[in-house]
Amino acid sequence: MKLEGQHHRTLYLRDDGTLRLLDQRALPFRVAWVDTRAPEETAAAIREMVVRGAGAIGAAAAAGAAQAAFCARESAFAEDLAAGVAAIRAARPTARNLFYGVDVVLAAIEAAGPHPAQARAAALDAARWVADDDAASCAAIGEHGSALVQDGASVHTHCNAGWLAFVDWGSALAPIYAAHRDGRRVHVWVDETRPRSQGAKLTAFELGQAGVAHDILPDGASGLWMRQGRSQLVIVGADRIAANGDVANKVGTYLLALAAAAHGVPFYVAAPTSTLDGATPDGDGIPIEERAADEVLFAEGVDADGAPATVRTAAHGSGARNPAFDITPAALVRGIITERGVIPARADAIARVLRPTSAGGA
Amino acid sequence: MKLEGQHHRTLYLRDDGTLRLLDQRALPFRVAWVDTRAPEETAAAIREMVVRGAGAIGAAAAAGAAQAAFCARESAFAEDLAAGVAAIRAARPTARNLFYGVDVVLAAIEAAGPHPAQARAAALDAARWVADDDAASCAAIGEHGSALVQDGASVHTHCNAGWLAFVDWGSALAPIYAAHRDGRRVHVWVDETRPRSQGAKLTAFELGQAGVAHDILPDGASGLWMRQGRSQLVIVGADRIAANGDVANKVGTYLLALAAAAHGVPFYVAAPTSTLDGATPDGDGIPIEERAADEVLFAEGVDADGAPATVRTAAHGSGARNPAFDITPAALVRGIITERGVIPARADAIARVLRPTSAGGA
Repeated sequence: MKLEGQHHRTLYLRDDGTLRLLDQRALPFRVAWVDTRAPEETAAAIREMVVRGAGAIGAAAAAGAAQAAFCARESAFAEDLAAGVAAIRAARPTARNLFYGVDVVLAAIEAAGPHPAQARAAALDAARWVADDDAASCAAIGEHGSALVQDGASVHTHCNAGWLAFVDWGSALAPIYAAHRDGRRVHVWVDETRPRSQGAKLTAFELGQAGVAHDILPDGASGLWMRQGRSQLVIVGADRIAANGDVANKVGTYLLALAAAAHGVPFYVAAPTSTLDGATPDGDGIPIEERAADEVLFAEGVDADGAPATVRTAAHGSGARNPAFDITPAALVRGIITERGVIPARADAIARVLRPTSAGGA
Repeated sequence: MKLEGQHHRTLYLRDDGTLRLLDQRALPFRVAWVDTRAPEETAAAIREMVVRGAGAIGAAAAAGAAQAAFCARESAFAEDLAAGVAAIRAARPTARNLFYGVDVVLAAIEAAGPHPAQARAAALDAARWVADDDAASCAAIGEHGSALVQDGASVHTHCNAGWLAFVDWGSALAPIYAAHRDGRRVHVWVDETRPRSQGAKLTAFELGQAGVAHDILPDGASGLWMRQGRSQLVIVGADRIAANGDVANKVGTYLLALAAAAHGVPFYVAAPTSTLDGATPDGDGIPIEERAADEVLFAEGVDADGAPATVRTAAHGSGARNPAFDITPAALVRGIITERGVIPARADAIARVLRPTSAGGA
């Protein structure tokens, strides 16, 4: 959308604490917005994936923490604030950015002193800073990563780590947008990304809007595609990166990394440093959310008239497991494209990046 | 179904050359049968996946070749026979069993001599032999493979290589059925297998009917599952196995093999020797069918009332690629479970198995 001259962000935080969210459940078939006023409403929007994607979750969580300050009674400010923030923290477990966004706002509230009015003003400013900083970081990721995207390359990606997953620009897609803007010919292989099909729905939508050539692939195809030399580069996003460089991202990412490794295709992770989690030593410490079985047993989309529709695609009586993320070991990651440059997926490099900006709670 | 006392095969060839096929497009939601009388009709049924799965395709192709003899005019027997057989051969490119089934019937016709009536009788006998031999081979695969399935094991599989994919019993599921019959506790992780969801639809249906515990997984989950130690064994089927042991099977199989290799989980391929292709040196020589993009852009199933329904799950305007198979290199295959025992995925072992039964055209 950005590159077509339209300009949307995925969310807006108003002066009264209302958060306006682009409803990602309706995309790509419908553009709808959802407003939340209380942290519990924002937590529900995160849980139900009205808003999804690491950066967008982080900004929404920051806004939710600010809402906790807005909604807290003056007579019980600390308790109400804590309860609201707890609701946000419990919304989804995997994305580091959620906790980062909350921590930034809480630090601002603490620094503002005991008066609720000052706390609210500081929280609003901090939540907006998280959103603006996310957008700026993604733009910088685009610039740093663009050099990796050579003219004529096909880039393979998984799930959606475009502007819809962040406040603006995105992480994995930002280098592609930058290369496209600079006139390089680039084509993207888009993994469908079952069960919620964020690749087929959101990444394909974004790329189509931006005029970037692309084709959707079943999630099982990346091995063959690598074997046949059809992908020159992989860039994916991340929901959390552990201190040693292990990466949590949408389930299926690890398989794509294994396929890339088997055929010598460079595999990069694009993420703002707010996704780095210095407090979690490795991937085994990252909690993996498991979502409802129905997401696997059914498929959601639109019918021939464009109306929302759901079909059961699995045998009656069978159950399903639905882990939403997986862990890609650091050894398979060629580099992490951050707003501060491309860094190795190694403990020393990650520690170095985290040190000067440790205010975020790492 | 077998283990519940009911007894169906996936197809029946009648004395008049009519082939009755279990319509696999309707399963698991509806049981329907399709009759074909001419080779062109049988070719269409193979192409449209009324019948699918290596062994079932092989038996259907053999029946189609017999139909070519039934439908051939006595005045132009050789030409009509050749045209009918050509239609069958062109139906789908990847499964070795298709060509094997046709070759067995053609060899029987040749041996029967020039009289059309004798040729038809011989073709009918040969086509029925292909079906019976497939069922017997799968039963033997079950016995040979059963020892690999230890009590309490979770077995991971991809797509459907159960009785629905063959005439009876199946290949990858046969050892599981045998272990279950022998009282061992076994659980199966069933990859959904987009885009046609043969795992969620057919394998889950079969296992449910047989009372075997199982859960469906998104295709992207096997890497995480292996990392978490949830799978003790992988068994998949094959559409063609090259002379060096490279395996063509449903797209996504290669990723499952890479995940198994990364975590030391034994990866077995179950296939009758009719799937071995001694004439194709390695996986690069196996033609990979590409199917219609719409299979990827849409999902088929049933609505809340159980009526057949289709939803678009991808952004409007985006295209898709739909390779139906991939190649798993022999080095990732611990062994091939055949009706003659478990053999290594190696050229010498495959050549040894093919030598005494080379009548099939290898």
